[in-house]
Amino acid sequence: MDEYTFKDLSFIPEIKSIAVIGASRKRDFYFLRIYLERFKGRIYCINPIIKKIEDLPYIPVYKSLTDIPDDEPVDFVFITVTRERVIQAIDDCVAKGVKLASVFTSDFADEGTEEGIRLQKELITHIKGDLRIIGPNGMGLYFPKIGIRWRSSLPLVTKGNVGIIAQSGGLCNLIIHGLYANDINVSKAFSIGNAVDVNLLDGLKFLKDDPETKVIVAYIEGLPEGTGKIFIKLVQECQKPVLILKAGKTDVGAKAAISHTASLIGDYSIWASAIKQAGGILLDTLNDIINMVKFLTMIGKKKIDNVCLISLSGGYGVICSDNLVDNGFNLPLLQNDTKTRFDDIFSDVHGSSYNNPIDVAILLYDPKKMGEIISTVMKFEIDKGLIDIIIFEIAPLYLAYQLTTRSKNLTDSIFNELKNIKEQFPNKPIITIIQDIGFNEVNNYLIPKLHSIGIPVYADINPVIRTFKALKNIK
Amino acid sequence: MDEYTFKDLSFIPEIKSIAVIGASRKRDFYFLRIYLERFKGRIYCINPIIKKIEDLPYIPVYKSLTDIPDDEPVDFVFITVTRERVIQAIDDCVAKGVKLASVFTSDFADEGTEEGIRLQKELITHIKGDLRIIGPNGMGLYFPKIGIRWRSSLPLVTKGNVGIIAQSGGLCNLIIHGLYANDINVSKAFSIGNAVDVNLLDGLKFLKDDPETKVIVAYIEGLPEGTGKIFIKLVQECQKPVLILKAGKTDVGAKAAISHTASLIGDYSIWASAIKQAGGILLDTLNDIINMVKFLTMIGKKKIDNVCLISLSGGYGVICSDNLVDNGFNLPLLQNDTKTRFDDIFSDVHGSSYNNPIDVAILLYDPKKMGEIISTVMKFEIDKGLIDIIIFEIAPLYLAYQLTTRSKNLTDSIFNELKNIKEQFPNKPIITIIQDIGFNEVNNYLIPKLHSIGIPVYADINPVIRTFKALKNIK
Repeated sequence: MDEYTFKDLSFIPEIKSIAVIGASRKRDFYFLRIYLERFKGRIYCINPIIKKIEDLPYIPVYKSLTDIPDDEPVDFVFITVTRERVIQAIDDCVAKGVKLASVFTSDFADEGTEEGIRLQKELITHIKGDLRIIGPNGMGLYFPKIGIRWRSSLPLVTKGNVGIIAQSGGLCNLIIHGLYANDINVSKAFSIGNAVDVNLLDGLKFLKDDPETKVIVAYIEGLPEGTGKIFIKLVQECQKPVLILKAGKTDVGAKAAISHTASLIGDYSIWASAIKQAGGILLDTLNDIINMVKFLTMIGKKKIDNVCLISLSGGYGVICSDNLVDNGFNLPLLQNDTKTRFDDIFSDVHGSSYNNPIDVAILLYDPKKMGEIISTVMKFEIDKGLIDIIIFEIAPLYLAYQLTTRSKNLTDSIFNELKNIKEQFPNKPIITIIQDIGFNEVNNYLIPKLHSIGIPVYADINPVIRTFKALKNIK
Repeated sequence: MDEYTFKDLSFIPEIKSIAVIGASRKRDFYFLRIYLERFKGRIYCINPIIKKIEDLPYIPVYKSLTDIPDDEPVDFVFITVTRERVIQAIDDCVAKGVKLASVFTSDFADEGTEEGIRLQKELITHIKGDLRIIGPNGMGLYFPKIGIRWRSSLPLVTKGNVGIIAQSGGLCNLIIHGLYANDINVSKAFSIGNAVDVNLLDGLKFLKDDPETKVIVAYIEGLPEGTGKIFIKLVQECQKPVLILKAGKTDVGAKAAISHTASLIGDYSIWASAIKQAGGILLDTLNDIINMVKFLTMIGKKKIDNVCLISLSGGYGVICSDNLVDNGFNLPLLQNDTKTRFDDIFSDVHGSSYNNPIDVAILLYDPKKMGEIISTVMKFEIDKGLIDIIIFEIAPLYLAYQLTTRSKNLTDSIFNELKNIKEQFPNKPIITIIQDIGFNEVNNYLIPKLHSIGIPVYADINPVIRTFKALKNIK
């Protein structure tokens, strides 16, 4: 297949009404309630055996979707009935002129049985008119700005710039929550499950064109047959970074993926080299995704070769330097200009090494000088293209409350220095390492503040290196 | 050097009295106060200009160590005077018959100046009699059980089984705190700095013989000249796992280490292969250390080849499987015996794959059955040596409070199942993955409980793989 007609999903931002088919008393109308907190449009409950929901008397209940008056169109329908009743629900959606139906129900091709496969094939024949289907066996659509989600735990953020398209709802949840825990918000996510209609290509195309979305994450188990080249082309044409987590790198994963969403996986290595050639970023783990999105949303696209490492803990700086160099990154010696300034800044400090890595040593208690160190590197090294990025290690134990008062307000002082530097040099990349070693009062306070000014925080050198390595392939 | 006389440190557990030379009003007697919370013996303040500490009137203050009455021996002295006064302090220690002096003062050979090097050489000539010195430029001794530490933040645990010997105080702090944040306690730690007397060999020998210590961590910048073979022999003879983080793997790291503690580093690759042959575990990062210690203290020495992966989130399980297999580990198909039992356990579950990886799917809400899955693998697979370890992934989002009540108490039920399993099969290895994705109320509650019953928790598959890989070399 060399041509593919992308399904139109451009109506999604205009969804004005929702119906849930299958919301039940047994589950306390869970799939209805999750829309109530933010969704401003009309919400309907479709249930053949109840007349009213006691504590939600204002939610109209109809036996069938088609019983809703004709002058009340329904844009989005969430279907969570048993699989035998899904086809009738789809027929009703077609009759009602619904734009998008999300089929949460599973046990179609994913079940791996003849009956499941047969039902899925039959389901496909019932998709008519302008109706688009997400699923079956998919969580559906997460569009927090207007209040559409599939779990009550999913954050109702109002602004997000990461789009997700995933063939596993569980993994999609993990990515959304993992990003949110790192102060990164999602614009829209599609959990497409068996993808009988809206598939990876359509979702990716939508996110590519979506003005809210700046970075795209795709979890892929398999593509629709024969669409490999179209997918690659789409990645190639996409101006936004496309991060890809692909199941089936190995036989065991491929086999597991088949039973998971009945997806066919081709040869991973062929696929991987094509993706790389198209400028896609192939990643291996959940944390890889989170760490890379953090970099791209806060720093942007940037290839890293030359690093300047500034550390509060000399020994830790040595270890980080070893790991960076051992993985192919350089810590170039700083220029004489820089050195001269450092000779001045470090004039009262003994036993510190400050020619990359820079051991801040006792200057950790002098945030002004720490700021000078960083801005000197920005002015005299990054500006000339000699250094691509600063890694600033901030061991939280030095910021935590101590018996002596020396450390008090140190956290704020360091943050303010970094804020000034970011304002002065908005386009000069700096990331931090703040170890996850139990100083939660420091970390919980400082990390979101740093993220808010576009300084990503990592917990150790290894995730930094994995991120830098994956960035090498960026367009 | 083929022979080496290890310095006797066996008196350490018998330390009964402490003096601080250099505790000052300026620092609010910080280095005195840190002993007061737990140390039960006598504590002295040595300060030539004060008579008494206002809020600590019961602490005797002397102008000089030698002014302390002869019938009051001093076992341990912490020295934090300027470098020019260190030698006098050492002389006083010798005169007083002190057993161990910790020289916190820096700017000796670590300063890299002629004067620093000269002073260090001179210092060495003043170490006489039975006096042992830690440092200079070292944090000294952490022995929390009796209340000896160098920072007020260092936890005063009463029981610990990890011994640390480190050439960087900063890194030593990070390791202690990192372990503590993972519910692992340290027995004794030595931050030896420039190591003019007590060195890596002596510290390692002490920890090797220390009955409290079960696992040893060494951070090494360089060894005393000519002692390479002795160090290797020591690692070889040590029945306890020896984890080594070595600075100077690359030229940049080696150069930085020289300025840090004036240590000479030999050829890393020769060193590395010797360590491996001796059964030492070479690691690369701080998190590697923490993750490995967690494994060794909770699971013990265990080579991992064959893994059974049980996951609550199908897609995540697929990705973990890919990563494991891609890194050389096997997920063998389970036997017919096991399969038959699983057919029964999963009889009501559709669309789940349960032949390794095992997708728990909807059984996540049925902890009893989840327990049966795990114990079946232990009984029929691990017992026969077909599987070495179970990795059980518990996505915290399914345990967090939800709108519906279904999840309530699920965390406790799952924990109780795992506790029963650990009691029934204490020697059958199981580890968990609980993602760090923001469900702190779940993670902060569950993770320490799992650690307390010997089930280590990791945040993603990558740290698990790094740990398994490093375990391949274990004796």
